[in-house]
Amino acid sequence: MTEPSVTVAEIGERRLIERIRTKVPPLPPPVLVGIGDDAAVVEPERNTLDVITTDSLVEDVHFRRDLVPADAIGYKALAVNLSDLASMGASPRAATLSLALPDRLPVADFDDLVDGFLGLAARYGVALVGGNIARSPGPLFVDVTAIGAVRPRRVLRRDGARAGDELFVSGSVGAAAAGLVSLMYATSPGMRGTLIREAAGAKGDLEACRARFLRPDPRVRLGVLIGRNRAASACVDLSDGLADAIRQLAVASGLGATIEADAVPITGLLSRVAGDEADTLDLALRGGEDYELLFTVPPKRRRLFLAVSRLAGGLPVTRIGAMTASPGLVLRRHGREEELPEGFVHFR
Amino acid sequence: MTEPSVTVAEIGERRLIERIRTKVPPLPPPVLVGIGDDAAVVEPERNTLDVITTDSLVEDVHFRRDLVPADAIGYKALAVNLSDLASMGASPRAATLSLALPDRLPVADFDDLVDGFLGLAARYGVALVGGNIARSPGPLFVDVTAIGAVRPRRVLRRDGARAGDELFVSGSVGAAAAGLVSLMYATSPGMRGTLIREAAGAKGDLEACRARFLRPDPRVRLGVLIGRNRAASACVDLSDGLADAIRQLAVASGLGATIEADAVPITGLLSRVAGDEADTLDLALRGGEDYELLFTVPPKRRRLFLAVSRLAGGLPVTRIGAMTASPGLVLRRHGREEELPEGFVHFR
Repeated sequence: MTEPSVTVAEIGERRLIERIRTKVPPLPPPVLVGIGDDAAVVEPERNTLDVITTDSLVEDVHFRRDLVPADAIGYKALAVNLSDLASMGASPRAATLSLALPDRLPVADFDDLVDGFLGLAARYGVALVGGNIARSPGPLFVDVTAIGAVRPRRVLRRDGARAGDELFVSGSVGAAAAGLVSLMYATSPGMRGTLIREAAGAKGDLEACRARFLRPDPRVRLGVLIGRNRAASACVDLSDGLADAIRQLAVASGLGATIEADAVPITGLLSRVAGDEADTLDLALRGGEDYELLFTVPPKRRRLFLAVSRLAGGLPVTRIGAMTASPGLVLRRHGREEELPEGFVHFR
Repeated sequence: MTEPSVTVAEIGERRLIERIRTKVPPLPPPVLVGIGDDAAVVEPERNTLDVITTDSLVEDVHFRRDLVPADAIGYKALAVNLSDLASMGASPRAATLSLALPDRLPVADFDDLVDGFLGLAARYGVALVGGNIARSPGPLFVDVTAIGAVRPRRVLRRDGARAGDELFVSGSVGAAAAGLVSLMYATSPGMRGTLIREAAGAKGDLEACRARFLRPDPRVRLGVLIGRNRAASACVDLSDGLADAIRQLAVASGLGATIEADAVPITGLLSRVAGDEADTLDLALRGGEDYELLFTVPPKRRRLFLAVSRLAGGLPVTRIGAMTASPGLVLRRHGREEELPEGFVHFR
């Protein structure tokens, strides 16, 4: 046990690494060298390709420590990377965790962060094989690299869509945005605060939305299924919002898309948080961090896809539109056509 | 061309990624998907294991922007990772670059940083396959993950040494420490400043030491050679100093070591920077960032090793001691025995 007031600076780098090492479960057989040497050694899975992704969470950019518990920071840093692997159709295998820690970070928070990471890693059979711990003279930085495996010709790229392919999204959108708004305003005296407190009558919904923001469930199983069975022609994940994901996939594939506004599966609570209908749709299209999958299904694969998607543990999938040869991104709403809004962009 | 005053915040994440993408050379054949999708896809080399390492550079912890040019930051962030791969006997193949950038960082510095990274990557055939760009509300943060390949049973671990194995170090030690000291004091009016300016009579030495601190040459060729030929039984790199590396290797192998102080190949300039002989040895043993390799050679492999090491492009190797069954770390100096000092430790 460590006193809550003990900081990471008092413990030191080596003992922090030791704390992680004692928590890491026994290495699975493909990992020949794990934490503790200059690098990790992992045996590739027979007849597969390595899939590699890196993503970081930066304090006061991606999270505020007063709103996000430390275990959720560790969880989410891995989750966003597993989501990237899923969107390529890859099964996750190993990850590294690189931290830059403010001197005054409590060791209890460090432990919670690591526990959040390892809890999710255990759920998907991901081995923590290495990483780095440095000091930060500023915010907390968490950088994760995840490595997965995918069979040749089963890779889900973002540029594989064809005109006429149908566009699907998993789960529902807007939950993370609703969760974030509710976390930010729940204790504030303003109008939104009142709305949130009223919405809290539906307390289960509110908790579910906060959980979706804090601990998104990466769609690992769905991504692997639609890749392995060649049910999808292209795929991206919804890190920066649905509108942004549609744009990325369309631009990469050299196509346009038409989206049916009424078909977008919007989380119920979002309308109560957002106020009116236009606001709700806007938040659903532009709000980031849902970590659902957006993918295209060729018409002749539709039946295969529907059969395959039923294996994804009850996760719903919804057709929201189709890819078009003409390059515009069109949103159909109440019989009118408008341009799809821009997504969330960093540095703006 | 970009005006020197333009900042990364004005350019934005997407256009910064585009700037990198246009500079990256055509993908080598094993890289099936590079920058621009949710993750990279790389075909493992036949009959090899993946070797994975992560290391970061944090502003005002690992470098000061007034002392270290931006291209050296990018160079070094990759070099320290290639050094880790070399110490495992692995050939580097691919890397990811994760950046958290202060809003006011000039785009010119961003470009230089990327150029430094890509210049070293080109020299060793490393493909930049992905990464991440985020904002930083504090320091510049550079995190690199590198992936290499090594044949099974050719991995150089740190725990493979046996009692009686001879201990070797590549190149010379203390150059990075001398380079750092000279960078820090060259313009200061104090005593060290005077010494440095006198030493600058030997301007070539001074530049060489600064280069060793700013742009260390990872010992890729030597590491791969002594691993592939099984000439060495254990290996680590000198990131946190020679004394620390000896301790790490000895502890991992469950052994002790005896070091001959006179045998340690100390950079000539260090004595002029350090002042007296005791200071010089201390800086050589404790000063970090040399990124040489420390490794053990079994007596019966000595001839093989000497033949192999001649292939390492003229890089000298020096016997500095031997591993012992008794666990102490002994420094022999002027006929007396003392304990080896501690190395550099973060958070202290």
